[in-house]
Formats: sequence, structure tokens, C-alpha cells
Amino acid sequence: MTVPPTFDDVLAAADRLRDHAHPTPVLTSRRVDAEVGAAVHFKCENLQRMGAFKFRGAFNALSRLSAEQRRAGVVAYSSGNHAQAVALSARILDMQATIVMPHDAPASKVAATRGYGARIVGYDRYTEDRTRIGAALADEQGLTLVPPYDHADVIAGQGTAALELFDEVGELDALFVCLGGGGLLAGSALAARERSPECRVYGVEPEAGDDGQRSFRGGEIVHIDTPDTIADGAQTQHLGRLTFPIIRRDVTDVHTVTDAELVEAMRVFASTLKIVVEPTGCLAFAAVRRLAPELAGLRIGVIVSGGNIDLGRYAALLR
Amino acid sequence: MTVPPTFDDVLAAADRLRDHAHPTPVLTSRRVDAEVGAAVHFKCENLQRMGAFKFRGAFNALSRLSAEQRRAGVVAYSSGNHAQAVALSARILDMQATIVMPHDAPASKVAATRGYGARIVGYDRYTEDRTRIGAALADEQGLTLVPPYDHADVIAGQGTAALELFDEVGELDALFVCLGGGGLLAGSALAARERSPECRVYGVEPEAGDDGQRSFRGGEIVHIDTPDTIADGAQTQHLGRLTFPIIRRDVTDVHTVTDAELVEAMRVFASTLKIVVEPTGCLAFAAVRRLAPELAGLRIGVIVSGGNIDLGRYAALLR
Repeated sequence: MTVPPTFDDVLAAADRLRDHAHPTPVLTSRRVDAEVGAAVHFKCENLQRMGAFKFRGAFNALSRLSAEQRRAGVVAYSSGNHAQAVALSARILDMQATIVMPHDAPASKVAATRGYGARIVGYDRYTEDRTRIGAALADEQGLTLVPPYDHADVIAGQGTAALELFDEVGELDALFVCLGGGGLLAGSALAARERSPECRVYGVEPEAGDDGQRSFRGGEIVHIDTPDTIADGAQTQHLGRLTFPIIRRDVTDVHTVTDAELVEAMRVFASTLKIVVEPTGCLAFAAVRRLAPELAGLRIGVIVSGGNIDLGRYAALLR
Repeated sequence: MTVPPTFDDVLAAADRLRDHAHPTPVLTSRRVDAEVGAAVHFKCENLQRMGAFKFRGAFNALSRLSAEQRRAGVVAYSSGNHAQAVALSARILDMQATIVMPHDAPASKVAATRGYGARIVGYDRYTEDRTRIGAALADEQGLTLVPPYDHADVIAGQGTAALELFDEVGELDALFVCLGGGGLLAGSALAARERSPECRVYGVEPEAGDDGQRSFRGGEIVHIDTPDTIADGAQTQHLGRLTFPIIRRDVTDVHTVTDAELVEAMRVFASTLKIVVEPTGCLAFAAVRRLAPELAGLRIGVIVSGGNIDLGRYAALLR
């Protein structure tokens, strides 16, 4: 699967998702606008089905499988939200899903994945290679592997969130998107290039895992060890072979933020916007808050990627 | 001001609010629907400006004042959200607001009210009568008193939330609304009677302050001491002379829930719907969860009234 996705693929994904994904609300806050000095539009994918944008890509990918592939079932490896997304999409499409998840994945995500009827295979994210485990399961049992980001249908599906944002609020000056493996960022960039050609598109990743920034600025994919960050959805080790060229071509720059900045953004989300956002979902807004002096007077889009976090951990971060 | 509001007043309020209030989103969750056994539509007034439905009634009331009244300014007494609502509305309409607030009001609400430019006068909610303090300030300084619920323009404004809900999702079998002084419940009932005539409308109040239930069932307004409940927006002592007759005529029944049930509902809002809801805002959903066996298969509306709560207190309740 090495044909890169295009904007037409994003449009086709939007058609497939029409009756299945929530058209998530775009929230605004005059208080946030006053603090940032810009007009900020939050695309709330934490209010998406299963609590994250990942449903879009997974459902789009699974809905394109052949009847034979559907009968055999799918396998996916994920630190959390992609797992739930594949599990839920498989249930909707009446398929069996097998999910390879790290032993230390958040309990709420494991429980939710199991709740959608998926079979779970555990592994150690610090010593084992989930790619290899997933590939072995696919080989041995004839399952179709649904990678978390480096897949044309996944990228196209993720792009539908930004597509909806532009279709609702019109052109923007800048769009901030969290960056792990690059599926959401690449898809968002495809949407931005067509719907708002002058819009600058920024990826935002944890400072502890700045492989995306180094890859973007250096021109080749940098591999790192699993980074130590509270943004568990961005604990990826490298960009993808499909996502990287799109990001290089259509993205303006990649920024990093600290875990402390993520917690501050999470608190503003709770106290001002009244929404629950997981650490990874705070990446884009944390960068907007840090870069506010450079964004004065602009129309900004922020993709709020997800809201899946254990309540106990969330409460501890809010205190 | 003793002429009771009608549905036409709700429509007129919706016109006045069009460019000022957020048309808040209606959220749904298949997980909640599966747990309750009904199709539940959450009208999210916690995502309203200043974080609660109270903005609707206050803005509607203030926008109807004469030029002379605007010049003199307004005074309001409130345990919190009405204070912020009047303060914000006054700022938008370029008026001076004086707010009579209890000394133990949540710090976030006091700070927000002051942040909107209002002058704050404190009192002890267990020993002093806020009605008398507000009336004295109105007399002495020529201010117009904006009561928190017993005012036709306030009731009509609050009714616009339910109006938007019906206009978005169509008719419902039952609508659940939190009940303190009855402004939101009376306004919602006016909207329901016209937009969804068969819809049962339920008020929900804290078990510790069941004056509304006793008043509704007994046929005359019952007065109680300030109730001890975490639902600080429903710590009212009695229904209003305007709200009570509307509630008697257009409401089906009044239910009560415990503080423990409010906390459980708050946790579901955070973990499943990914929204921050203050205790008072959890009343309606807590009743739906308790009454689920009787609601099987119905189309339900729930007004989520507000999301203003100190983060530390919120975190303590979530743990």
C-alpha cells in the first residue's frame, strides 16, 4: 500500500463516514481568544465516537476491505485510540478484530477496546516490536493489518476532521495539529491545501519525542526510542513512509511542547471550554498558547484529537 | 413584573439572543444510550457563554431595559452563574452591574464575575436575606433589580435552550431539566408545550432541597432553609410566584436525586461524553440514570445547565 493519498481520497472518506462518524462541533471561547490574541476554532474530536479522531481513519480503511478480507478479520497494534477505533469499526462492519496493545496502555482504553468485542494480545512497548507482532499475526491467521498511521485510507480518513473544520468556518491563517506518526497531520494538510491554500499547517509533538521536527527539518525520517511523555498517543518512534512526504510537502513547520505545557492546556480546556481532553489532544493548543505573540490577530484552527484518559489520572493532573 | 411569559416571549428572546448566545451543541453517545436504554440528547449549556444557560435569561432581561435604566445600571443577587450572566450581559450592553454574592460562592465564579467588570457586594447566605439586600441597593442607588429566576424576561430567555433543542432534534418523549427557582424549568416547559406537545417535562432537584417537589405535588409554594447539597445552583429556598404556576400547569412531575448520584453522573459526563459539568448541571442526567427502567425505548432530552466549578473541587469529586 504505497500509493499516497490525495484530497479526492479525503472527500471519498467523508462520504463513507457520513452515516457513522459524528460531525463534531467547533467550539470557540472569547476568553481564550482574548488570552491568545487570536480567533481560535477548536475542532473537538474528543467528542468523536470512541473519543478520538482515530475512528475516522480506521472506519475508512475497514470499509474498503473485500468480502474475503472482512470474513478473515483484521489486526492492529496501538497504544490506545487506534485500538478502540479498529475494534469499534470492526463491530459496526461485522468483522473480528485482534488488537496488539502494550501492557501499560491506559486501563480505560484497554477496557473500551475489549468492550467493543476485540481480542487483545499484550506486549512490552519498551522491549518488543509491535510491528513485528502484528505482521506475524497477520501472516499466521490471514488477518489484514490496519496500521495506525502509515496507510493511505487511514490518512485520508483522518483528513476528514480538518475538512469539516474548513467547511464550517471557512479559510484559516494557521492550523495546529498533533503529531505522532503523522496520519492526522498528513490528512489535515491534504484538506488544508485544497480548502484554505494560504493556511499555514503546523505539527506539534512532545519535546521528549522530537523525531518529527528533526525529520521535517532534516529531510529524512529520524528514528528515536519510545519517548517518555504524558502524551501517550504521540509516543511514536518515527514518521511513516507515506506520511513523511506529505508532511514535507504540505506542512509549514513542526513545533514541540513540554509535558508541563500540556497540563496547562488541559486545565484551560477544563476550566474555560468545559471539555475533557487527553494529554495528546492538548499538543496543538499548547503550541498555540506558547506561540501566541506570533499569532496576533490571526484566524487559527486547533484539532483537539481525543479525550480518552483514566479519570483518576485526569483528576491528578487537574489538581 | 407579574405578567407571566408566553411562548411568544421565548421566540422573541431567541431573536434577541441570536447574535450573542452560542447555539450550543446537542451531544449524543451510543454508550450512554445503551446504558440507559433510551436515545438521550444532551443540550450542552455548559458550553454556553460564561459556562451556563443563565446568560440567556440575563441578556434577554437586560436588553429590554429603557435607556434611562441602562444608564443607572443593574443589580442582581446570585449564588454564582446568574451573577456572571448579568455581569457579562451588562458589559456587552455597556451598563454597570452590581452583584450581591454569598461569601462562600465558588472562587471561580467570584473571579469570573469580577472579571466581567461587575462591582461585588458580599453577604452570608445562611443568616442574611439576599432579596432584601438587592432591593435596598436598587432603592438607594436607582438600580434595576434583575432577579435570578422570578422574572418574565428571565424565564423567556432560559426557554430558548429547550427551543433550540427541539428545533434541532424534533419532538421528544420526555425532557429533564434541573430545578432551583424554576426559571429554566418554566421556560423549557413553555418551549416544550409548543414544539413537542406530547413531551413529558420533568424538573429535577437535590433530595436535600425538595421544596419544588413538595410545592408541585401539594399545590402551593413551600419554603425551606438553604439546603445542604453540592448542587450550589439549586440551593434555592422556594419557587417563584411567576415560575410556580407555569410549572404546575406545564410540567409532568418533579424528581429528586442525591449528591452521590450527581457525582456518578458527573463522572459519566467526563469519562464518556468528555465534558465538564458542574454538580447542578448533573441533576437532570442523574434522574434519567435513576429512572432508566421507566424510560426504555424513549427519545429523551437532557438540559446540561452549566460547567462552572473550581478545578480543585472538580478533581476531588472525580477521584
